[in-house]
Amino acid sequence: MAVDAAPFVTAHAAFGPGARFHHVGLAVTSIREADPAAEPIVNRTEGVTMAFVDLHGVTVELLEPLGDDSPIARSLAAGVKLLHLCFEVDDLDEALAAGRAAGFHRVSTPVVVPEWGGRRIAWTLSRDFGLVELAERPR
Amino acid sequence: MAVDAAPFVTAHAAFGPGARFHHVGLAVTSIREADPAAEPIVNRTEGVTMAFVDLHGVTVELLEPLGDDSPIARSLAAGVKLLHLCFEVDDLDEALAAGRAAGFHRVSTPVVVPEWGGRRIAWTLSRDFGLVELAERPR
Repeated sequence: MAVDAAPFVTAHAAFGPGARFHHVGLAVTSIREADPAAEPIVNRTEGVTMAFVDLHGVTVELLEPLGDDSPIARSLAAGVKLLHLCFEVDDLDEALAAGRAAGFHRVSTPVVVPEWGGRRIAWTLSRDFGLVELAERPR
Repeated sequence: MAVDAAPFVTAHAAFGPGARFHHVGLAVTSIREADPAAEPIVNRTEGVTMAFVDLHGVTVELLEPLGDDSPIARSLAAGVKLLHLCFEVDDLDEALAAGRAAGFHRVSTPVVVPEWGGRRIAWTLSRDFGLVELAERPR
């Protein structure tokens, strides 16, 4: 009980005060098989088919490869299911700067994703926390 | 905007109505390096040192290997950071039965973890969702 009673540490306000957890990315062979009720969206900008589903309170982004050379296909072949955490932020550039200072290094140029409501996103990599997506909140 | 406006699908009420997302497990080489403010707990029951931290609204369980033959060490060697999702449930046995029907197969015998408030936990594996921990809510 002691563990649950202890307040969580929040040392990693890594991306600024407006950042909020949005989803965890999960590689699947087939979105339709993983969740027949899901509504897949072809995201050619990132080379995936994606769908958001809620699993008991956590948003899971199902990611299905678009083509065999997709990074998602490589993850699946390696047995890796959970791919990234995504945080929603007010200002992508400010969040990237804050993240860099906290050890989250940008590994892609920010890009607009028309298939995801025109959001601007960027990818970062942290030695400790792995792959993290930042997605600018729609204005 | 359409994607965000659409209601999330909740097809996977996999573990019964009382189930609630609790945390995502993340392998780290050193909890102290990942978060100097974290409070590590040696969990000999599971062969890990663990600490819960909040990252912008998501609870992340940092998992550090206890010994080189730890599964966590193997994940780190393979570059795999995100390990599992954990859901809290009212009744572990009922949740396991519900999960099995939804394709989450038990891969460990339920065990009490004194280091985590005496919670009963069990591990399941789903072809689609990967490794999932179930943790019984303290009564």
